[in-house]
Amino acid sequence: MPPTGDLYAAYAEQMQRIADVRNAAAVLQWDQETYLPARGAHYRGQQISTLTEMAHQLFSAESLGGLLKDLDEKGDLPPAQRTNVSLTLADYTKNKKYTSRFVRKLSDQTNKCFHSWIEARKHNSFALFSTDLATLIDLKKEEADLLGYEGHPYNALLDEFEKGATVASIDKTFSGLLPALQELLAKIRKQPIIDDGFLKQHFPKSNQWDWGMYLVKELNFDLTAGRQDISEHPFSISFNPSDVRITTRIDTSDFGNMTWSCIHETGHALYEQGLPAEGYGLPAGEACSYSIHESQSRLWENHVGRGSSFWRFYYPQLQSHFPGQLGSTSPEEFYRGINRVQPSLIRTEADEINYHFHVYIRYELEKQLIAGSLKTGEIPGYWNEQYQKLIGVTVPDDRNGCIQDVHWSHGSFGYFPTYSLGSFYAAQFYACAGEQIPQLEQDINSGNTRSLLQWLRDGIHAKGRAGTSEDLCRTVTGKGLDVSYFVQYLLDKYQTIYNL
Amino acid sequence: MPPTGDLYAAYAEQMQRIADVRNAAAVLQWDQETYLPARGAHYRGQQISTLTEMAHQLFSAESLGGLLKDLDEKGDLPPAQRTNVSLTLADYTKNKKYTSRFVRKLSDQTNKCFHSWIEARKHNSFALFSTDLATLIDLKKEEADLLGYEGHPYNALLDEFEKGATVASIDKTFSGLLPALQELLAKIRKQPIIDDGFLKQHFPKSNQWDWGMYLVKELNFDLTAGRQDISEHPFSISFNPSDVRITTRIDTSDFGNMTWSCIHETGHALYEQGLPAEGYGLPAGEACSYSIHESQSRLWENHVGRGSSFWRFYYPQLQSHFPGQLGSTSPEEFYRGINRVQPSLIRTEADEINYHFHVYIRYELEKQLIAGSLKTGEIPGYWNEQYQKLIGVTVPDDRNGCIQDVHWSHGSFGYFPTYSLGSFYAAQFYACAGEQIPQLEQDINSGNTRSLLQWLRDGIHAKGRAGTSEDLCRTVTGKGLDVSYFVQYLLDKYQTIYNL
Repeated sequence: MPPTGDLYAAYAEQMQRIADVRNAAAVLQWDQETYLPARGAHYRGQQISTLTEMAHQLFSAESLGGLLKDLDEKGDLPPAQRTNVSLTLADYTKNKKYTSRFVRKLSDQTNKCFHSWIEARKHNSFALFSTDLATLIDLKKEEADLLGYEGHPYNALLDEFEKGATVASIDKTFSGLLPALQELLAKIRKQPIIDDGFLKQHFPKSNQWDWGMYLVKELNFDLTAGRQDISEHPFSISFNPSDVRITTRIDTSDFGNMTWSCIHETGHALYEQGLPAEGYGLPAGEACSYSIHESQSRLWENHVGRGSSFWRFYYPQLQSHFPGQLGSTSPEEFYRGINRVQPSLIRTEADEINYHFHVYIRYELEKQLIAGSLKTGEIPGYWNEQYQKLIGVTVPDDRNGCIQDVHWSHGSFGYFPTYSLGSFYAAQFYACAGEQIPQLEQDINSGNTRSLLQWLRDGIHAKGRAGTSEDLCRTVTGKGLDVSYFVQYLLDKYQTIYNL
Repeated sequence: MPPTGDLYAAYAEQMQRIADVRNAAAVLQWDQETYLPARGAHYRGQQISTLTEMAHQLFSAESLGGLLKDLDEKGDLPPAQRTNVSLTLADYTKNKKYTSRFVRKLSDQTNKCFHSWIEARKHNSFALFSTDLATLIDLKKEEADLLGYEGHPYNALLDEFEKGATVASIDKTFSGLLPALQELLAKIRKQPIIDDGFLKQHFPKSNQWDWGMYLVKELNFDLTAGRQDISEHPFSISFNPSDVRITTRIDTSDFGNMTWSCIHETGHALYEQGLPAEGYGLPAGEACSYSIHESQSRLWENHVGRGSSFWRFYYPQLQSHFPGQLGSTSPEEFYRGINRVQPSLIRTEADEINYHFHVYIRYELEKQLIAGSLKTGEIPGYWNEQYQKLIGVTVPDDRNGCIQDVHWSHGSFGYFPTYSLGSFYAAQFYACAGEQIPQLEQDINSGNTRSLLQWLRDGIHAKGRAGTSEDLCRTVTGKGLDVSYFVQYLLDKYQTIYNL
């Protein structure tokens, strides 16, 4: 057998090629959602499918499997390399369960679904999305069978986004949390409604754009290694740590829409820009998991970006961008307004408490779709009923209801729970950062978020992927995920805001 | 052997996959020259190289070769399919001469060269480009050997861009033409210099952009199947007939820079948008050749876009876009100004006569570089000497000299002659269009270029690639390339403008 070093180099080279193809597909995806001309969709879908299929073929190659098995048996592999090899071997073994034909079918169908979702949103009609979505859901059921699972078929899909997560574990997390949230919401409902009308004035597009660009720069998003553009649905995407892109959307009658999406996506982007470039193509160069990714975006969006310290410094800056709109709103009114708790229709605009009911409804819905106990055509009915029951709002139409999110059109079933997990990890990380950086709040008070970023860089970003979310959480905070940090964070915050 | 229809379908499917990968690489290239953040260059280069190598591997696959040979022997292939197969077989045979390793090396080196060209331009110094270029030239010599040639090694590279072209044929074309151009230039030099100072006023960026977008739309560039952006060097690129992109650059102190680059690139784009979509991935869906491509851009740029008929309609429109700058310039002054003949440094800004000396200098230079009789380090010296001798201008620096064009950084040696050939084909096509569309000049007089576009669509665009440039020229005009059309066009035009 060749020397370990040579085998490892050959493995790393093959993985870089695969990353190149995957990242090329990501560039095409980014372009599709930002600059693609209307009629370009058909062949773009085909081009993405071809790249996706090729990446799959490369990652299923027997030659790679052979390398991985040989390396796995080598006793002299340095620990960091061993971690890469064993994580890749697990991914490889899983990937081998997919046939090329299935991968292409899935990719073709998600492309189709994406465009019918766009149409459905344009015409405000779930019906335009339903048929393509039903086909996609059938494929996701097929995928669950193909991957195999114990217990609920949805477990197979959950594991795609959060290794080790199951219906049992997510059910347990939600059932431990939701009653506490409901109790808090009940107390808040007894208090006077906070006025946030100042957020709903006319905020011109170009001023919002300038403000958003100012903000992402202030948050240390490196614009020599990334960019921001406009898209239908804000997202972040990375082609390597030196090319990380975020998008936003601007609603001229709703200031919050763009601002917190900028902060949120910047949180994702800072993680990607902080990944070790030398790990390109290998687990060491990847984010740990979707939930840890979301922990970064929500930490910046909520713990920093909806915090009183942050706005102590930035509110005067904001006022100078919008003197006509915000000149007469006090910092206190602003802080209370941006943290108003209010049942609402759109997940991405939800407050930090109600947000998790939005996620929970999608989670329950997906479970039933995948189990086959709910049909695709029944989604709007189920959706509207659950929103009434759990959030207390009446859904007026599909655009404000079940076609608000892009995820299903991407085939991302099993993804939503990572949004809530991300919030829980964020609270635990931020509490830990507060203990380990004594001057944290003073720094943020003075518009300096670099100490926090450095702490995240050292503890989380630079680590790449070396294990599960739970493993990383233990390394960073000394213990596994504990939702009580999140509950405590909410109690502290809203007791002050609502004088509970 | 399977039935012909099945074999052909399998061949077409494989070709579409290859097109997907090539077009994906093209998207990455487009992004690289428009929106890529500064630090993203390194991995982008690697990603493009990987896709280029994969496309090469797919197009060298034995399975494809087998299909092509089987199809080639079938007697029952419909004529259009037979043409596709035989052209693909010729390409395949040629492509097999390249090793994957060589393709990757070449792609890596051109990526490297592109970035050092950008640096060289930024610092106005050929020296920053020289080392990488020298390596690239060595690779191009290796490529010539690999492909094989008779006579001059440059013949192998010429054939890449214009099938059948040789040093002998291009030498002959130039030597038949240049004396006539010199004679015409000598006459023009005796006439008073035309004032075109109105073109060099301050034309604000955003007004130019609006004017350019107006113009490309008026010329029937379909913006639902394409877009225009800004880049360092204007170019057009296509990912399929429904996604064709052009770029331009804006010089606020030179009106002509953007306007005629918009028209030129639109000419390329109209060709791509007019290719048969159902031929995607096959010769039937490709442009005939580089020179025919260039004939389309130059036909629109010069025969239409510098013609008196066109501006009869559009000059008032232009004046309304720039009343301050052009309000007091008469249509006649404008027409004479935009057609002023004047030796100049930059090829893309050259008048229609001097232009071909720019091309000729590069052609002679490339011949000698590939033959090894000129060293890379000697380029600036040779360049400056030839510009003095043939065009009569003193080159002040490299940016206005030998690093003005992007082509060498792309490894496009053998490409420049297609620019001149394009002009010659354009003149012949336009003369033919004038004979076959009786109301052509009246149409253009009234701002209607659709009859011309339809003529080009039917005779050229819809034909895809079915043979050589010469073949197409015969089909369209009834005879092979004849440069006397071009000479006659120049004589007619400049006799009027300069009262010769």
